[in-house]
Amino acid sequence: MSHKKHHSTTPLSQLLRLPPGKVRLAEHDTSATPGFPGKGKADAAKFTAAILPELSDLQERLYASSQADPENAPKVLIVLQGMDTAGKGGVIRHSIGLVDPQGVQIRAFKVPTAEERAHHFLWRIRKALPTPGMIGIFDRSHYEDVLVVRVDGLFPESEWSRRYAEINEFEAELAANGTHLIKCMLNVSYGAQHDRLAARLDDPTKHWKFSIDDLDSRAKWPAYAEAYEAALTLCNSETAPWHIVPADHKWYRNWAVAELLREKLESLQLGWPPASYDISEQKRRLAELS
Amino acid sequence: MSHKKHHSTTPLSQLLRLPPGKVRLAEHDTSATPGFPGKGKADAAKFTAAILPELSDLQERLYASSQADPENAPKVLIVLQGMDTAGKGGVIRHSIGLVDPQGVQIRAFKVPTAEERAHHFLWRIRKALPTPGMIGIFDRSHYEDVLVVRVDGLFPESEWSRRYAEINEFEAELAANGTHLIKCMLNVSYGAQHDRLAARLDDPTKHWKFSIDDLDSRAKWPAYAEAYEAALTLCNSETAPWHIVPADHKWYRNWAVAELLREKLESLQLGWPPASYDISEQKRRLAELS
Repeated sequence: MSHKKHHSTTPLSQLLRLPPGKVRLAEHDTSATPGFPGKGKADAAKFTAAILPELSDLQERLYASSQADPENAPKVLIVLQGMDTAGKGGVIRHSIGLVDPQGVQIRAFKVPTAEERAHHFLWRIRKALPTPGMIGIFDRSHYEDVLVVRVDGLFPESEWSRRYAEINEFEAELAANGTHLIKCMLNVSYGAQHDRLAARLDDPTKHWKFSIDDLDSRAKWPAYAEAYEAALTLCNSETAPWHIVPADHKWYRNWAVAELLREKLESLQLGWPPASYDISEQKRRLAELS
Repeated sequence: MSHKKHHSTTPLSQLLRLPPGKVRLAEHDTSATPGFPGKGKADAAKFTAAILPELSDLQERLYASSQADPENAPKVLIVLQGMDTAGKGGVIRHSIGLVDPQGVQIRAFKVPTAEERAHHFLWRIRKALPTPGMIGIFDRSHYEDVLVVRVDGLFPESEWSRRYAEINEFEAELAANGTHLIKCMLNVSYGAQHDRLAARLDDPTKHWKFSIDDLDSRAKWPAYAEAYEAALTLCNSETAPWHIVPADHKWYRNWAVAELLREKLESLQLGWPPASYDISEQKRRLAELS
């Protein structure tokens, strides 16, 4: 590593961490680039690549810890939320794509199936949690059950209003159980969403990414913003805080999530598992098999 | 793309393809580098990076095809086999790691569980097949059921000897069902295995990768070679041929699997799915929501 470490100043996880209290999304600049060590887009690739060696090393330690202690190794879970086009898929491709795919478990939550709807809303979530030593990625999550559900009135208020407390309990249980959460709200502006949807409609190689549902949701932007503000305000605990990632600049968003992951892995202070065998004896056996 | 395309000569899939007939592994050079367009290790990173843009584009077309036609989109399945330390994990990390992790489904087959043993040997394999639009990776596979099973006599010969024909039927069924197989035997030498095991014993950051089982298997190298030769000879059909990937040079092995995947995806000749909506109408709706 360079002697000028890129994380020598305030950790990004502190810079992006949502402070407790009532959230107003309008107060969060969607085109800001807090903590980015370079000048801008032109050197984003360089600074993202600079994270890679340490990220690879830390991810391998996490994975190795599960080989040595399959029951008790830590787990990491990145929760990605954001309006359409905020870049959940882009983050997975570009930031999570930096990591060995053998150490990653990705789950996208779509409209619930009939079976999923027949269960408690956390049932499908619990089934998708990362296993020891793994980095889980939730592309959407249990938060949809207080977002689209609230906006579209899929359940009565008496039902969804209870869920904030249930989510807090659930996330506290995850933390107690060795699952380290990184909750990221990819915060994109109404204007940037327009430009990204227009780009999808203009480019034949992107037509498949566009859905008429995207415009239905866009028409409900104020209701979604209100639902996000409620979720961010009510489910922002010490053990499972939110990070607001400004997402109008894709290069910043991708760098930031990679750096948040690196910081979290570093905080676990993972060593390498010791040998579970007699090294000298195995060297002798290997020599006999030369 | 450059006008000097790196695949303008004989496709790698032809160069590495195992010809029909009786296989003798000793006749295959484990340190050869067939088809590599550069000089050696020093430019391997460059030539692997050169595959990336086309590989990304092709993988996205595959994924997109499943969004447009969820039932009938093609599937790709890379089967990785090889002696311990041949580099199944290294290929996944370095070659499959080039691809968007959202388009990849990795499955490692370990010693079967009690539940798996209670079923036909293909039961757990069928459950792990890639879904439409996805690239599946098998780290070990159904071939273990004619390799370790045969070497260690876990089933009587009357049982495992039937399995070659069953595997051929199964793979023909996969091909008929739109699953495009890339079977790779990562062919490492006895000497290179020694050096890799010694490195694991010498380096505290690699101790967790070593298992005493590795030396037990090494002691049975001739029996494993014989079992591999039988599997390669008997299960090498036109629709599901084997590729022998020389694996003593890690840089070649990783480049080769990435290139085999690129060639396979290119052969599918996938376009971009057309819009399933009226583009002009959606542009008008978007303009109204500006």
